[in-house]
Amino acid sequence: MQSKNKDIPVLVVEDSQEDFEVLEIACAKAGFNMPMRRCKNGEEALQYLYREGAFENHPKNEHPPFILLDLNMPGMDGHTLMETIKDDDDFKCIPVVVLSTSGSANDVFRSYQNGANSYIQKPDDMKGYVTMVEQIRTYWFECNMLPMQWSVV
Amino acid sequence: MQSKNKDIPVLVVEDSQEDFEVLEIACAKAGFNMPMRRCKNGEEALQYLYREGAFENHPKNEHPPFILLDLNMPGMDGHTLMETIKDDDDFKCIPVVVLSTSGSANDVFRSYQNGANSYIQKPDDMKGYVTMVEQIRTYWFECNMLPMQWSVV
Repeated sequence: MQSKNKDIPVLVVEDSQEDFEVLEIACAKAGFNMPMRRCKNGEEALQYLYREGAFENHPKNEHPPFILLDLNMPGMDGHTLMETIKDDDDFKCIPVVVLSTSGSANDVFRSYQNGANSYIQKPDDMKGYVTMVEQIRTYWFECNMLPMQWSVV
Repeated sequence: MQSKNKDIPVLVVEDSQEDFEVLEIACAKAGFNMPMRRCKNGEEALQYLYREGAFENHPKNEHPPFILLDLNMPGMDGHTLMETIKDDDDFKCIPVVVLSTSGSANDVFRSYQNGANSYIQKPDDMKGYVTMVEQIRTYWFECNMLPMQWSVV
C-alpha cells in the first residue's frame, strides 16, 4: 500500500458481526494491519461514501482504497450497492472484491456483470480466512497497483 | 481453475514478442501451465473475441476465462480495447488485468475507470515475472472465483 494512503481505511460492508470479527482476527493472525471501516448494509455504505448522515463530518476527499463487499444483507444488498458504486464516476475506480458465503454461479456472474473486480467465497474456517487475508494482501496491496492516489487530493 | 474450462486459453493482448516470450518462460518456471492465446493489438483481440476474420471458425461460445492486457500497442491500444470489452454485455464479466510497463497514475486511474479488474506494472526482470505469475495463479485461479462457467455453454 502506498504510504501516503495507508491510514485511509478499507471499507468492509458486512452485516454479520461474527463474520466481521472473524475477518479482524484473521488480519491480526496474518499480521496485516489493514485499517477497516465497517458498514452493515448498502444504505450505510452509501452514506459513508457520500458523507451523509452520521458521516457528514468525515473528510470528504478520502475515498476508501479498496472495498470488501458481502452480498446477502438486510436492506440494500451487495448487488444493488455494487451497481450503485460502479455507476458513479466518483467511485467506480475503487476496486470492489465480493466476499460472500454464496458460491452460486449466478451470484458470481451477476457480480462481475455489475463491475465487481473480484469474487471470493468466504472460507469455512479460521485457517482459510488467514490464507485468504494473506492472498488479498499479497495480490492487491503488493502485486497490484491501486488507484487510490486519486482518493486523497 | 475449474476443470471443465481448463483448456480454454487465457487471452494475452501484447504487441511485444519479447514481453510475451518472457511471460511464457515465467509461466514455465512457475509451473503454471496456463494455455494462452496471444493477440498483438486491440483489433486482433476484438476479432478473436467476436470470431471474425481469421478466427471465424473458432468455437463461438468459448470466451476466455481471463484477459491479460497491455496498454501501449500500435493500432487500437489497451485503453480503447478495455472500454470496448467492458461496454459489451457478452464480455464485460471477463476479468481483465492490465499488464503494462507504465506505472503512471493516469494510466492506472483510467484503466480502473474503464473497468479494469486489476492493474499490474510489468516486473523489471525474470525473477519478478515468475513471482507475478505465481501471484496471478494463486489469487485469480485459486482464491478468486471466475465467472467463466458462463463462457462454455
